[in-house]
Amino acid sequence: MSTAPNALSATEAARHIREGRLSSVDLVKSCLQRISETEPTLRAWASLEEEAALKQAAEMDRIRKAGRPIGALHGVPVALKDIVDTKDLPTERGTPIFSGRRPTHDAAIVERLTDAGAVILGKTVTTELAFAHPAVTRNPHNPDYSPGGSSSGSAAAVAAFNVPLAIGTQTNGSVIRPASYCGIFGLKPTRGVVSRRGILQTSVTLDQVGCFGRTLEDAALLCDAVKGYDPSDTMSYPRPRPDMGAGVQAEAPVKPSLVWLEMPYHDKLTSDSIEAFAAVTEALGGQVERIKTSEKLAALVDVQHTIHEYEFCHHLSETLNTHWDQVSDTLKPIVQRGRKISQSEYEDALVVMDSAETFFEEFFHDYDAVIAPSATGEAPKFGDSTGDPIFCTIWNLAGLPCVTMPLLVGETGLPIGVQLIGAKEEDDRLLRTANWVLNELKAEA
Amino acid sequence: MSTAPNALSATEAARHIREGRLSSVDLVKSCLQRISETEPTLRAWASLEEEAALKQAAEMDRIRKAGRPIGALHGVPVALKDIVDTKDLPTERGTPIFSGRRPTHDAAIVERLTDAGAVILGKTVTTELAFAHPAVTRNPHNPDYSPGGSSSGSAAAVAAFNVPLAIGTQTNGSVIRPASYCGIFGLKPTRGVVSRRGILQTSVTLDQVGCFGRTLEDAALLCDAVKGYDPSDTMSYPRPRPDMGAGVQAEAPVKPSLVWLEMPYHDKLTSDSIEAFAAVTEALGGQVERIKTSEKLAALVDVQHTIHEYEFCHHLSETLNTHWDQVSDTLKPIVQRGRKISQSEYEDALVVMDSAETFFEEFFHDYDAVIAPSATGEAPKFGDSTGDPIFCTIWNLAGLPCVTMPLLVGETGLPIGVQLIGAKEEDDRLLRTANWVLNELKAEA
Repeated sequence: MSTAPNALSATEAARHIREGRLSSVDLVKSCLQRISETEPTLRAWASLEEEAALKQAAEMDRIRKAGRPIGALHGVPVALKDIVDTKDLPTERGTPIFSGRRPTHDAAIVERLTDAGAVILGKTVTTELAFAHPAVTRNPHNPDYSPGGSSSGSAAAVAAFNVPLAIGTQTNGSVIRPASYCGIFGLKPTRGVVSRRGILQTSVTLDQVGCFGRTLEDAALLCDAVKGYDPSDTMSYPRPRPDMGAGVQAEAPVKPSLVWLEMPYHDKLTSDSIEAFAAVTEALGGQVERIKTSEKLAALVDVQHTIHEYEFCHHLSETLNTHWDQVSDTLKPIVQRGRKISQSEYEDALVVMDSAETFFEEFFHDYDAVIAPSATGEAPKFGDSTGDPIFCTIWNLAGLPCVTMPLLVGETGLPIGVQLIGAKEEDDRLLRTANWVLNELKAEA
Repeated sequence: MSTAPNALSATEAARHIREGRLSSVDLVKSCLQRISETEPTLRAWASLEEEAALKQAAEMDRIRKAGRPIGALHGVPVALKDIVDTKDLPTERGTPIFSGRRPTHDAAIVERLTDAGAVILGKTVTTELAFAHPAVTRNPHNPDYSPGGSSSGSAAAVAAFNVPLAIGTQTNGSVIRPASYCGIFGLKPTRGVVSRRGILQTSVTLDQVGCFGRTLEDAALLCDAVKGYDPSDTMSYPRPRPDMGAGVQAEAPVKPSLVWLEMPYHDKLTSDSIEAFAAVTEALGGQVERIKTSEKLAALVDVQHTIHEYEFCHHLSETLNTHWDQVSDTLKPIVQRGRKISQSEYEDALVVMDSAETFFEEFFHDYDAVIAPSATGEAPKFGDSTGDPIFCTIWNLAGLPCVTMPLLVGETGLPIGVQLIGAKEEDDRLLRTANWVLNELKAEA
């Protein structure tokens, strides 16, 4: 192979391993080598146990050689955001409060990854408790910039060819935004597709698992591996789940109908973003309808904040109370604000969220996907903030499947993602549409 | 369709539903109609909630019509042995001790079936605590005969076209034997392939889940739907699982090597069985090697009894002590015997079991499968016993995948199954071999 193993897509690597042209050990070694080169600057990894990963890779190789069953991710390394519990690796949740914490059980998605034959390479850096305070990770395209958050390390590690796949989570914009800043694909499936058992709960209503990859197919492959009904997660739904891989492969029967919703918060878009998105919608020609939305829709941003902050303070109240001195100055004012939200304000917000879900159920009868920015523009400078998640907020609140694709470049030369949002439980249709957009814009370029 | 929906295989039914030629509601109604005809004599069902099943079927139909994701068993009814916990149906375990018991949680396999879009049609009759005391169920071919046990209702219901698929469990021979007596396919996968969480534990070491269908493909389809790694089951293994469906579809690269092990307990074979198996091995020509085994191998039967009875008494000691007056006269002497087994006898038995597993690991380097009877012959008369499980004992003890195929007919006109046993974790290879045998013998007939 001419490509170094670490630069292969997960789909390619899995095929090479299955067909005996690549060993998992060589792939993992190649990733570890790459990590040793980038990590001093990138700082994407919270923990990495090389010996354990190589041992797991060797076992996957032995299984394949023995002609025993092969999983969909057989021998392929995967990184996990450091809020996903693993019994073989620490899970420190981006805060000194949980320094040295070693869970006794794997998260549900780790069980699924094990079944798929994946090699858990290590844990990636998260912002403090998966919230706003920036972590140490840098943007892989330019270390002076932020990789976004809260899934900072996961997005950066995939973008930097440290690992082909990584798991992140999103409560507001923590998968789509870092994927956009780091120039990779991010897929946040419908709320309830993936179990959150064993993942730090920051908001029972809004926390959602997402998948990072360097191709659309890879993000779908990872999502297919980890999805599954799990009644121990109250948001998990008892119905069949979308086949993500089939969605990416499917031909759109007709050209999809896309819609651009002009939102009040679009005034936050940078000028290079405005220009780039104008070009995108032009390139997609008659397939993009433009609609000016009501203030009511934009007001959902506040509804998200109410639910997120209220639940965060409640779920983590003991942790925050006991370790207040170890809470960052970024998080403290959020918590202080969250504690002032009354139960009735919170319950009202949940009612509005429900009505938004109903609204979007109707809405997607007319459209295959919303096309939207993934963020305000390029990544912000590394510093006090991991960037504004507002371009993700509403969609995540409504539990809709979202995908970001690294199709644009900003004025500094940093990537800008194009986001597509689809109908609930129709992630496969969204991915079919995303693939169509990808091919249209490639043909255009 | 010319075939009544209830007579379709699960694979056909799933395809018809997927392609819109059959509704799940019509399929379920057809099954319920058939049950109403057979149940007065057959008595295969422990509980059946028609309204709930039809409601679930209607939801699967709505999902399909809406273009939402379709599961592998979308809208296909499945029956569960009445030791598998279900939150929507009673789970009474074949004993008045648990009369009216309603679990609060679904078993792990019920979660998997939900994800696959299956309709849980109802619970099927089990023998008392899945052990030896016969249940009320009759053989679907002739009500004067036993359907076998302990998965009596599951095997009978599938054979009687009440339902295309059913789940059973096997600690000694409770899947393979009733499938053989009822003339259907039974697949007992490798120990640890399917999670037992939420299923009555009668022997933590030996209990294994199995699948019934009227075609080999169907049994494989059901097994693929329910399999999965689950660390909450101590026997579940953290590696990829065989693709059963692919196994059935695969072409054998060369004619498989089969072996017939002449066992001391073969003196229990009925004369019609001896004759029929002689014809089978002849028809398979040079592919079947005959080996006379050592007494040591046959001694494993006692090892199974020691582990089974010891663990049964320990797991259920409270139940048995508290409700001794409700324990059958068949079970009482078994329990009394089990209680006399010392811990060291038990531990010795586990050591021998381990060595048997190691022995078979080596053994299958030379053979694709063992070919063997599934039972001593035709079903026994309905009465004091559900038949002798001895032809299943050793394979189940060693945790090997087993499949029985309804290929022979005895002197009374009742079915006799042909059993194939394969290498651990290579259920796919076993199914490939089984399909080859099936085609060979069909061509021969």
